[in-house]
Amino acid sequence: MNLRKNIVALCGGVGGAKLALGLASFDADIDLSIIANTGDDFEHLGLNISPDIDTIAYTLAGIANPEAGWGRADETWSFMDALADLGGETWFRLGDKDLALNVLRTNLLRSGIGLSEVTSIITDQLGISSELIPMSDTDVRTVLQTDHGALDFQDYFVRLQCTPVVSSIEFKGSDNAKPSARFEELLTDPDVDAFVICPSNPFISIDPILAIPTVRAKLADHPAPVVAISPLIGGKSVKGPTSKLMSELDVGSSAGDIAKYYGDFIDGFVLDHRDSPFCVEIEQTGIQPFCSNVVMSTLDDRCRLARDVVRFAGVLTA
Amino acid sequence: MNLRKNIVALCGGVGGAKLALGLASFDADIDLSIIANTGDDFEHLGLNISPDIDTIAYTLAGIANPEAGWGRADETWSFMDALADLGGETWFRLGDKDLALNVLRTNLLRSGIGLSEVTSIITDQLGISSELIPMSDTDVRTVLQTDHGALDFQDYFVRLQCTPVVSSIEFKGSDNAKPSARFEELLTDPDVDAFVICPSNPFISIDPILAIPTVRAKLADHPAPVVAISPLIGGKSVKGPTSKLMSELDVGSSAGDIAKYYGDFIDGFVLDHRDSPFCVEIEQTGIQPFCSNVVMSTLDDRCRLARDVVRFAGVLTA
Repeated sequence: MNLRKNIVALCGGVGGAKLALGLASFDADIDLSIIANTGDDFEHLGLNISPDIDTIAYTLAGIANPEAGWGRADETWSFMDALADLGGETWFRLGDKDLALNVLRTNLLRSGIGLSEVTSIITDQLGISSELIPMSDTDVRTVLQTDHGALDFQDYFVRLQCTPVVSSIEFKGSDNAKPSARFEELLTDPDVDAFVICPSNPFISIDPILAIPTVRAKLADHPAPVVAISPLIGGKSVKGPTSKLMSELDVGSSAGDIAKYYGDFIDGFVLDHRDSPFCVEIEQTGIQPFCSNVVMSTLDDRCRLARDVVRFAGVLTA
Repeated sequence: MNLRKNIVALCGGVGGAKLALGLASFDADIDLSIIANTGDDFEHLGLNISPDIDTIAYTLAGIANPEAGWGRADETWSFMDALADLGGETWFRLGDKDLALNVLRTNLLRSGIGLSEVTSIITDQLGISSELIPMSDTDVRTVLQTDHGALDFQDYFVRLQCTPVVSSIEFKGSDNAKPSARFEELLTDPDVDAFVICPSNPFISIDPILAIPTVRAKLADHPAPVVAISPLIGGKSVKGPTSKLMSELDVGSSAGDIAKYYGDFIDGFVLDHRDSPFCVEIEQTGIQPFCSNVVMSTLDDRCRLARDVVRFAGVLTA
């Protein structure tokens, strides 16, 4: 009898990566495949930068910067200092160690190797046993319409620190994008036991994945449950602009509104105990709510939430 | 009356850069233009690397590593360590600070800016007042025929540490290369007071410059004297494979043989006091010899030799 469980997690940056680490760690019988958002990817200083892939990879390898939410622990900054002296752009910070991964990826991509294979080479080298899969091998770029005009994602997120007011978000290239080959395979793989939407920002971390043609429909059609985890705790985003964007995009403000925003392709929704008053309205939309502690400060927190999510998915399957 | 002197120096890496610094420092009335060998340039890890340009720039900016002969002082190596952990190539060492210049140059070149302009941007940022000019804006690549087969320059020089036996050297692309616009201008500029061939390796640092069509002839035709400085001291190369290459290429072994190797396009030859016995045979070839102390350990040494070279050129002009 095979007790292994195949979990596929859709994931953005820091919040999502924390749950991904929990899913990868709490039970040796979990086979975890992580689909990373690449809508934040961009070219900077001639380098191909994939912030969410790297945050997930560094988190799983145990070398992530625990404070910043991006980059590596014990980082040094000689490159950035020297670049500043040479008059180079310094608004996007690349540490010396982080740069190694970015130079390596850029060189491999330029040699004609696709992003999926490049990511696999990197995770192998970092000793990561979970599968880390870009959502697509073709470029999808998140662009935000704001009161500062149209902004590329990193301009909005890093350079302007999310201060512009957003009126709409588009994912350039998504109409003609395909899921990466491995993601495509998993979307119709009968052995997948659950799809998990990590507690990432729905609008800028999960929507780019869902915007790729067929993804949303295939998730809805797959017999395995799709479980989303709320990125809100007590109605507020832990980190990042989720609450601010909800207000600007006029999609409500509560965990219940997040569940409704995802809508009918999800089967279950995990929300924090503090948001339990919204369970009734979530249930009324046909989505099964489940209350847990969604705060993930320690590795124990991450493992506990991961266990709750996988058990809840098991209940939804039964 | 204009007492300024216009000196054009043809220069390779470490030995040449030392004299270039002397020429740039010994007299405020010297206008120095340095033509850098780019035959050593190569693409590595997807970056456009110009070792001689950088050694000269770092030396003139006072930030060169005083021991290594390449790279920057007070360098850190986080990038290289992280790259090793990721399985990247580490035989060519790029420090964290050095990387800033290489990433910046690569990005500027990719945006369509030529190597001359890129070099000018970099030297401006480093506060260098002398002109630093690549020999050409088109690619010329030094390739060595050896007992290990044909080797790209850095394979021979860095990876194999000059151990292969060299039978011939070619400069790929030189037949169709043009001198950079500014070099071309200087080659026929009547205001140039002297051309200086720095004490670099004749075969791999100076020959690539001379291999560009018209350069050698224009140097010979220019009314200003051309003065070469011996890279040998007491018949031995200070650093690098000059003596080894002389033996392998069968061009003798002495300072006199270097003068004869350059031949009739040079007017004067500065050699070390220890090599003074070769003055007679040099004079017999029609080249004026001048004995000096060619050792350049300190900045004072470099300034003293630079002063000797410029005074000697003045004597040749008179």
